[in-house]
Amino acid sequence: MPKLEIPRKAVYRLSLYYRALQRLKANAVETVSSAALSKAAGVKPTQLRKDLAYFGQLGTRGLGYSVSHLTQTLMEALGTARLQPVVLIGAGHLGSALVRYRGFEKEGFEIVAAFDADPERAQDVALGLPVLPMEALRDFVRERQVKLAILTVPATVAQEVSNELVQCGIQAILNFAPTILQVPDGVVVNNVDLAIELENLSYFIR
Amino acid sequence: MPKLEIPRKAVYRLSLYYRALQRLKANAVETVSSAALSKAAGVKPTQLRKDLAYFGQLGTRGLGYSVSHLTQTLMEALGTARLQPVVLIGAGHLGSALVRYRGFEKEGFEIVAAFDADPERAQDVALGLPVLPMEALRDFVRERQVKLAILTVPATVAQEVSNELVQCGIQAILNFAPTILQVPDGVVVNNVDLAIELENLSYFIR
Repeated sequence: MPKLEIPRKAVYRLSLYYRALQRLKANAVETVSSAALSKAAGVKPTQLRKDLAYFGQLGTRGLGYSVSHLTQTLMEALGTARLQPVVLIGAGHLGSALVRYRGFEKEGFEIVAAFDADPERAQDVALGLPVLPMEALRDFVRERQVKLAILTVPATVAQEVSNELVQCGIQAILNFAPTILQVPDGVVVNNVDLAIELENLSYFIR
Repeated sequence: MPKLEIPRKAVYRLSLYYRALQRLKANAVETVSSAALSKAAGVKPTQLRKDLAYFGQLGTRGLGYSVSHLTQTLMEALGTARLQPVVLIGAGHLGSALVRYRGFEKEGFEIVAAFDADPERAQDVALGLPVLPMEALRDFVRERQVKLAILTVPATVAQEVSNELVQCGIQAILNFAPTILQVPDGVVVNNVDLAIELENLSYFIR
């Protein structure tokens, strides 16, 4: 499926619609109006109609959307229709923690290997997946056709490791290092900075 | 210090300025122009000047900002001048992982206790901090004057637990449960959904 040109924020909302649809499906709901779906997703109805219009005519006037058809459409767009392999770089505290956290798999992502400059130093010997040296990254990524990486290395080496990932063919990076990565066009980075999230909340405390 | 009415997104940028200033300080830089600071923070200069104007006249025309004075101002605004106690609710895989991850403390946040409906079930006996039953939450939060909570419970019980947190006096919640929490005015919630971040990246993969 060729990728549609959809704004980044709209893609986030597709995930919200997808989750709302999953809940409706679990409740044996077969069709849903745009008003009901937007409410379930916590998004404005006009926004939802605009976002879904990217995919052409999906709903039927007066009847709404077919839950199973719309689920399938979004799943294909989001690339979660089949298990997507992910590599994790940096098997320190946070990296090991994310490997042990099994919340990704039910969403369609499988961490297939961890890499570390010093695999011996990996925080946990019982991660249940191989911890490989950085030198093994290129062959692994090519062989397994991995496109997605989770980056949990220290900020001081994050840019250097990011360059390596891009050279290996990684197209998307979920970056936990508290630094802004420079990547070429065609590579996307999402940043998760847990300390910044806490700091932001802290501002609002009386 | 009474809280200024600053937009949520501007508060995020304060964190970026704060980190850029820390790097400048580490490099023994004493004053910085708004152009140089905005570049270091990855923010537009006009945006930076607008954001810092909330704090009144901070810089000196032609000289720029004093790195140490601006650091101090932002630290006080963000409430990270002293170690802030945080409780974590839900000592499952992700919760235990976040406790083991020690990245919060150097940013001014200390997870002082974990709570779980079944403390016996906590994923790790060696978390290095008490795992208490939910019944102990109210007294603990009041006694230690905790205002911040990290929520890592399943989505199905997240709203219920969130209500409890609010009743106990928690004012800010970092929510990892993949659901939208309803909270009263005066309580803030930041959401971190790791699966949605991966899904979002996955969309852009060719």
